[in-house]
Amino acid sequence: MDLKPTKPLSGFIELLPAQQRCFDYCAAKMQNVLRNSGYSRLDLPAIERAEVLTDKDNWDEIETQIFLFQKGDTKMGLRYDGTVGLSRFVAGHLTDLNFPFYTYQFARNYRGERPQRGRYREFWQLDIDILGIQNLSLNYDAEIVATLMKMYESIADIVGGVRAKIGNRRFWNAMFSYLNLNADQARDAFVLIDKRDKIADFYEGLVETVGENAAKEIDAVFKKGYRSFVGKTDELDAAIAEMDKFMKLLDAMGVKNAEIDVSIMRGHSYYTGIVFEFFSIDYPDLPAVGGGGRYENLASKFSKTKIVGVGASIGVSRLLVALMEAGKIDLTRFSKPVDVAVLVMGDENLPYAMQVLNTLRDNGIPSVAYLDTDKKFKNQIEYADKIGAHFAAIIGETEVANNVIALKDMVSGNQESLSVADAVQKIKVK
Amino acid sequence: MDLKPTKPLSGFIELLPAQQRCFDYCAAKMQNVLRNSGYSRLDLPAIERAEVLTDKDNWDEIETQIFLFQKGDTKMGLRYDGTVGLSRFVAGHLTDLNFPFYTYQFARNYRGERPQRGRYREFWQLDIDILGIQNLSLNYDAEIVATLMKMYESIADIVGGVRAKIGNRRFWNAMFSYLNLNADQARDAFVLIDKRDKIADFYEGLVETVGENAAKEIDAVFKKGYRSFVGKTDELDAAIAEMDKFMKLLDAMGVKNAEIDVSIMRGHSYYTGIVFEFFSIDYPDLPAVGGGGRYENLASKFSKTKIVGVGASIGVSRLLVALMEAGKIDLTRFSKPVDVAVLVMGDENLPYAMQVLNTLRDNGIPSVAYLDTDKKFKNQIEYADKIGAHFAAIIGETEVANNVIALKDMVSGNQESLSVADAVQKIKVK
Repeated sequence: MDLKPTKPLSGFIELLPAQQRCFDYCAAKMQNVLRNSGYSRLDLPAIERAEVLTDKDNWDEIETQIFLFQKGDTKMGLRYDGTVGLSRFVAGHLTDLNFPFYTYQFARNYRGERPQRGRYREFWQLDIDILGIQNLSLNYDAEIVATLMKMYESIADIVGGVRAKIGNRRFWNAMFSYLNLNADQARDAFVLIDKRDKIADFYEGLVETVGENAAKEIDAVFKKGYRSFVGKTDELDAAIAEMDKFMKLLDAMGVKNAEIDVSIMRGHSYYTGIVFEFFSIDYPDLPAVGGGGRYENLASKFSKTKIVGVGASIGVSRLLVALMEAGKIDLTRFSKPVDVAVLVMGDENLPYAMQVLNTLRDNGIPSVAYLDTDKKFKNQIEYADKIGAHFAAIIGETEVANNVIALKDMVSGNQESLSVADAVQKIKVK
Repeated sequence: MDLKPTKPLSGFIELLPAQQRCFDYCAAKMQNVLRNSGYSRLDLPAIERAEVLTDKDNWDEIETQIFLFQKGDTKMGLRYDGTVGLSRFVAGHLTDLNFPFYTYQFARNYRGERPQRGRYREFWQLDIDILGIQNLSLNYDAEIVATLMKMYESIADIVGGVRAKIGNRRFWNAMFSYLNLNADQARDAFVLIDKRDKIADFYEGLVETVGENAAKEIDAVFKKGYRSFVGKTDELDAAIAEMDKFMKLLDAMGVKNAEIDVSIMRGHSYYTGIVFEFFSIDYPDLPAVGGGGRYENLASKFSKTKIVGVGASIGVSRLLVALMEAGKIDLTRFSKPVDVAVLVMGDENLPYAMQVLNTLRDNGIPSVAYLDTDKKFKNQIEYADKIGAHFAAIIGETEVANNVIALKDMVSGNQESLSVADAVQKIKVK
């Protein structure tokens, strides 16, 4: 019989235990920040109706990237981000939730696209949102950026430092209006600016799209700075003032490492105001490690109630797996699942050994037992060594008779006979 | 424009924030037991190749229940349990893992079947396994039952007590051999015994399948007890002795509330020895809340190496959502996401309020801010009340000028002016 393949499908992630412990550590740290900041978790289905997932008015042509399938008469697909499910859920639970609603999701999302380096077809993402009915002050945009910065700080020992770049969609809307661009030109200019750092002929593309005069003005935003447009129109002044106010808010919230970068656009069509992206300081080659922005009408497809919000996401898999694959994360501290391996020399000593194991675990000492009691001491101590246990608690006839354990420090090699209570003390202070 | 539906697909679970906090609390508690017991988490893909998911020699006709779909040329589907992915992963990483390998998964699984009460198409499941190469002593079966019992105990305040019922597939194999049943008869008898408590004409079915004499003997197992077959064959004696030994092991591990029930079969064809199921004591109407057993060759489809194991699973969604829907879980303690709501009376007080918010959070006090600073005090204090905050930290002109906060106890109604440091102390001892 042919054996089945043991590799996962391409674009799917599988971590080994130490990598997974590192991943889980980071996920827990970041979620602790969110819980401590009053964000309520939602765990929405990974499968949605196709009609919920797909929109015709989405620039990203996201439909071709969705995992769609049919079961019975129902067309459905896998979620590709946290926003679509959140919109549906909130629209359906307007009276069950308190607004402003601080919420987050930590879930797997799916993309049907052909996988490439650093882009996965299945990945964990943290989606963080604050939603209001009708309106929501700019202060919440700053709150969410500050919260994300705290989340990154909580895992800085693993991933290094992160800085925020702040853009403003309103600024570009004001620019396009000032330059008298029509809707098609504005859309094309938007796409060019969004991809500015990825395309060589940015300026040529602009000229082709909006003409030479407008192209020069847009280019001047990057060459001379967005402040050079102060005083041109009220709209531009308001957008620039909004950015200034926003930076002051971040400062009040204790956010360091944040700066304006008007080339930050965020691809999604639903953003309408402040947008932001986060970049690794220590690993500048990484693409954005998170981002988000303000949207003015989240759930218009699901509800007549206007739901305003600011949202952000962190591609947790993208960030951590990229760094692990590049060997940038030291996994030593995650490579040792237990402190003690209990080794049992013969089945007759098992009841006593089990009591010892229970006592260790009840004392919060991660412990595991080697329960193939007929194996030689050599095999058993090898196991304790291989799993990186700091101690081996060896239990044979003598230990049972004397109501003790032979505690071997696997690092120093020292071994001593101790009561269980004394062993617990010793292990705890190690 | 027609609005899109806001309900999830039938058979999919959506919890409100307080329910989700309860769910997450239980999931964390149970996983703490596992980590403390040295089980390493694996987080395997939700999507597998169709050829990995489907087998023709599976009695359950599971293929019709899988979500299968195609992307490009690749047929794939959603995982329906933790075992198939684990088999594939372990077979592919034999040299990366230490055996016995203590592992668990906490993941969503999928069933394509028509949803019914308490059966979901998407559900969270904890899969716990200990794997060995070539062989693994019976002691591990007891270890896993003991670990599951500790997991249930860790959430007994939420779900009440749980008891274990222990069966033995080896006993039935010995019985069928003793009764000279052929392979087809044995299979049919197995299915009947497995469904014994669900079918009215159990005995009639047996007679039809295995004849009257064998049916009488099988019925005697339930009427007179399995011990009445001691001395019939060596195989039966060995199987009965195994059960006796197993109960002694559980006792040594401090497991209470465990008993032999030979009608426990577990539907899966891959179990070969001890099998077990867990039932709620407080909610006896619930179906099994977990179960598992011994399998002799986990990964034969993926590797020539014989991987022996004992595995168990807890249907976390099935258990918790059923109890929540039945109103059996008091969610009061999960209904308050924060201790403090910071209320800001005017934008000019925002920088100071943000520092207060930061200080509270940095002190580990879950806090949220109401940042629509132009809203009236009435609206703001209503928000603090609605989200169940124990305290409101009110910040206006006076508080900024005096470097204090007006701390209102939302329970007693008392309000006092305190320095931030004093407020932190007061909130922490509340």
